[in-house]
Amino acid sequence: MKRIKAWLKDQGRKYGVRKGAASVGLPPEHWGLTYHHQALSYHTVALADVLKRWGSPLHVVFPEKLLSNLKGFQSAGLEVFYSYKTNPLPWVFQQLHHNGAGAEVISAYELWLALKLGVPPHLIIYNGPAKSADSLRVAIERGIASINVNNLEELEVISALATSMQTVANVGIRVTSAQGWTGQFGFPVEDGSALQAYQRALALPSLNVVALHCHRGALIRDRATLQSHMRFMLDFAQELKTKLHWWPSLLDVGGSLAIPSAKYLSKQEAQLSSRFLVPPHAPNPADCLTPEDYAREVVRMVTQRCGELGLRVPRLVSEVGRALTGNSQMLLTTVQNTRKDQAFDFAVLDAGVSVASIVTSEYHECLPLAKKPGPKHCHRLVGPICHMGDTLYTANYQPAIEVGDALAIMDSGAYFIADASSFSFGQPGVVALYANGEQVLVRQHETFEHLISLDTIAPTKQ
Amino acid sequence: MKRIKAWLKDQGRKYGVRKGAASVGLPPEHWGLTYHHQALSYHTVALADVLKRWGSPLHVVFPEKLLSNLKGFQSAGLEVFYSYKTNPLPWVFQQLHHNGAGAEVISAYELWLALKLGVPPHLIIYNGPAKSADSLRVAIERGIASINVNNLEELEVISALATSMQTVANVGIRVTSAQGWTGQFGFPVEDGSALQAYQRALALPSLNVVALHCHRGALIRDRATLQSHMRFMLDFAQELKTKLHWWPSLLDVGGSLAIPSAKYLSKQEAQLSSRFLVPPHAPNPADCLTPEDYAREVVRMVTQRCGELGLRVPRLVSEVGRALTGNSQMLLTTVQNTRKDQAFDFAVLDAGVSVASIVTSEYHECLPLAKKPGPKHCHRLVGPICHMGDTLYTANYQPAIEVGDALAIMDSGAYFIADASSFSFGQPGVVALYANGEQVLVRQHETFEHLISLDTIAPTKQ
Repeated sequence: MKRIKAWLKDQGRKYGVRKGAASVGLPPEHWGLTYHHQALSYHTVALADVLKRWGSPLHVVFPEKLLSNLKGFQSAGLEVFYSYKTNPLPWVFQQLHHNGAGAEVISAYELWLALKLGVPPHLIIYNGPAKSADSLRVAIERGIASINVNNLEELEVISALATSMQTVANVGIRVTSAQGWTGQFGFPVEDGSALQAYQRALALPSLNVVALHCHRGALIRDRATLQSHMRFMLDFAQELKTKLHWWPSLLDVGGSLAIPSAKYLSKQEAQLSSRFLVPPHAPNPADCLTPEDYAREVVRMVTQRCGELGLRVPRLVSEVGRALTGNSQMLLTTVQNTRKDQAFDFAVLDAGVSVASIVTSEYHECLPLAKKPGPKHCHRLVGPICHMGDTLYTANYQPAIEVGDALAIMDSGAYFIADASSFSFGQPGVVALYANGEQVLVRQHETFEHLISLDTIAPTKQ
Repeated sequence: MKRIKAWLKDQGRKYGVRKGAASVGLPPEHWGLTYHHQALSYHTVALADVLKRWGSPLHVVFPEKLLSNLKGFQSAGLEVFYSYKTNPLPWVFQQLHHNGAGAEVISAYELWLALKLGVPPHLIIYNGPAKSADSLRVAIERGIASINVNNLEELEVISALATSMQTVANVGIRVTSAQGWTGQFGFPVEDGSALQAYQRALALPSLNVVALHCHRGALIRDRATLQSHMRFMLDFAQELKTKLHWWPSLLDVGGSLAIPSAKYLSKQEAQLSSRFLVPPHAPNPADCLTPEDYAREVVRMVTQRCGELGLRVPRLVSEVGRALTGNSQMLLTTVQNTRKDQAFDFAVLDAGVSVASIVTSEYHECLPLAKKPGPKHCHRLVGPICHMGDTLYTANYQPAIEVGDALAIMDSGAYFIADASSFSFGQPGVVALYANGEQVLVRQHETFEHLISLDTIAPTKQ
């Protein structure tokens, strides 16, 4: 015990953490929220009233924030193709499309959905390592902006399909750098594979090679990282120009921009929190590029390089995902049960890892819907499932939590709904909340009947 | 590099692994399958034909195996209350219920479903840390076998509800041992909390305290572990008899029995596989208790102790989950794309972590549907999603894999469907396959339309 305490003290010194200081998180004002008469509110609307009206748990989308993020990304001439997989809500997609955004899709389903929502083909890009032949046929027939090729085998498949359809397919090549994701994705530049892929693609008459695509995967938070990513792409484009006399007409810089108010938790932070109840520090939103900063920097670097080389500025596309929708949504959840333990109290929420798994590995602010007086103490916030792993916050400091209290888990607009399962409980509904108080049902709560709607059930005596 | 090779050699010596030996897994015969003219078959049916008929990916349930597992658990007088959360397929539940099994439920939805399927109340047990007030009312009104109380706060809620309904609720107390899960679950025996909980429950006139419940959580594989679990429960029951003059009329021993052909992967095994392409060893099915062994041992130990104490043998209930359905189901998946890498080839499957996440942390045999000649070499089997983490097998040794080849991921009957999300792709259908070749659609593939069936979509121009 003595050794553990010494270690903890040392860790505390090293990482600047202190139990007392631990409770300092990001203020609600960061999201345009305030405590009005102790009630967490968006303009004049108390979120507790929204939750009461629609039922718990509930995702709340802020359309104004969504569109201001979009506007930021679209500034300076950058095109936004929203990454459908990040937060798969057709209503949200429609808001984005009505304001000029395209669709970045990675499956036959997502391609189908984009077309169903009326997205024009020149605003659709198709990525991913598992494009079915049927979906490729649709993509080729409709002439979408670019099918970004993942590997050589796929290049031949697309070429053969286009040939058999007596048409030409718009394609891009996905390239990778050692600083980003590689693995099953794309062609590495450094070993010459990417160059060879372009060589091969340009030799195939059924392919119209339009795009250069690089998705970093690893997050981009600061300007230097974005600049390094862009330099990598531009250097390779320049190499393509020099060696193959090809220059992209569409430069797809991928996604990967972080959410300012979220961050990955390090192993140390996770352990300090779960073993010693020292919660992680909040990220500093100011050290993250804003949508405007990001867009301006991308456009500036490309324009400058094109100027230097005397080449046409290509269509500039970002497949932004989490940075666009992440902080325009939150998950409201209600305390179902409480229990005292020795060092902390448990609060059992109606939302757990099955609908918010990313909270186990990322910092997400958690705000009580009602501000209470009294000293903060440590709570372990767990989900409703019968599994030890259903723990969202190992050490969350708040005044006493009671059954019926509600909490807002912030930044739920990326990889909450995408990763959600219906483990023993139906998935949450989604409501859009406008500043004037208007509320629109975006997605219904998953009902009991819906959970069995694809099942074969033999008649039974009731 | 030299140091890494030395380390690998040392690890190899330590854990008895060798690249060459790595390809030895469990034979298909373990599941009653054979290669008939090179085609993996169940009796006379080639699984490739089943996959072709219903579409990929596809779960296949073996009803004969399911019912023989059930019969094994029911031998010696043990009652089986199947853990609904483990593999939430109503059709499978019906097979079990038609053969005498009850339902162990952990949510309002699961309670609703059990009643909808016609399960008589005396065959329903309600567990979990998040029982809603509405569902507790239903459970009390219908007089289910036992509501197992998770914590003191819940005890008071149930008592108050029963009082207000002018009736009596059948309850059990969930107790925990240091060897199993604790955390948010149940009352620890060792610090006296469990005894106090019984004391309090017995003092409440609106509660009929019927059950003692202990779910180990940590897996039970061998007889010694089961005996230790049972001894712990029986010792505490004896303490209750001595101190409170109470003896359970229902002893609920929980679940946690392992699947013989699956096991958790250690960190070392996972690292050896991902970094050095040394795949994990298969578990030895013979070192796992069979359903019959398990049932006989539970009944023997309880009967013996009751005999010694001169007490009535209680209803004996097991909430078995994975050990009942796990190995009666498999997931068939098709290769969508391949790509050569330096040390291994990638095969991109149409099933990944979104429908088979447990494969990243457990050993699950992977059998090709068509037996091919030629030397085995290393494949990395990944899913269809645009994420590095979508990797099911970091080092899987098979003869060359081509697009269109299909694989069977064994033991998919526990925590595959329960944990599944619809990340960019609809979830697989489920078909039951009988030895005589009969095939029954248990659950439809999730269609594109189904994926948006709860969404609000404004009309658009097509």
